[in-house]
Amino acid sequence: MASIFSRIVAGEIPCYKVAEDENYFAFLDISPVAKGHTLVIPKQEVDYIFDLDDETYVGLTRFAKRVAKAIEKAIPCKRVGVAVMGLEVPHTHIHLVPINKEADMNFFRDKLSLESTEMQAIAEAIAREME
Amino acid sequence: MASIFSRIVAGEIPCYKVAEDENYFAFLDISPVAKGHTLVIPKQEVDYIFDLDDETYVGLTRFAKRVAKAIEKAIPCKRVGVAVMGLEVPHTHIHLVPINKEADMNFFRDKLSLESTEMQAIAEAIAREME
Repeated sequence: MASIFSRIVAGEIPCYKVAEDENYFAFLDISPVAKGHTLVIPKQEVDYIFDLDDETYVGLTRFAKRVAKAIEKAIPCKRVGVAVMGLEVPHTHIHLVPINKEADMNFFRDKLSLESTEMQAIAEAIAREME
Repeated sequence: MASIFSRIVAGEIPCYKVAEDENYFAFLDISPVAKGHTLVIPKQEVDYIFDLDDETYVGLTRFAKRVAKAIEKAIPCKRVGVAVMGLEVPHTHIHLVPINKEADMNFFRDKLSLESTEMQAIAEAIAREME
């Protein structure tokens, strides 16, 4: 069965899309730890990031860098933090989180709950900064 | 002034070394969140990962994949998680953490305190699995 992320890529499940190219896709995390918290995925459905073939893996990390640069421009922050855990959804995903201090990367506290209009505005702001 | 990580690379500060090549270096985190918690750094002293030039950035992510594969072989775990925060030491570093559940990636709980003999044994076990 297709992963929830493959269904998002296919447009079967809605998302706040940030960026897309032939092989990769980025969209807002629906349970963000910070405003602008974005997930970057390969369209190829591979559970574990280090099981990706080298070409797809390097392409994913390059794409993540482009998205991170766009997040930095769109969201006030000191930098963009990175996390890959991936035990909840079996489809490789990189978390990109705008942070001002390390505690902003704490995934184990209460998540933000934002209105859909605000989520949409954030996604569009980041998308506009993609080069 | 050289960062603490540059001083580790130069051998001025001791570490539990895991791997090294011309441009990159890996060693155990001295305050691990899990046994086998490793830091991967570029020798080039750049504070923020997304400020690395593309070649150094891609080389770093490739090197991190090699180290992650070695950690998987040396340390019993479901997979190796990845985190980059980097607001504490101004020298790019990727955390690689062997995890069995997402909570194992919680950087905001008490760290482990391991004897130096155990740290050395862990570093050597991972180093032996480097290809």
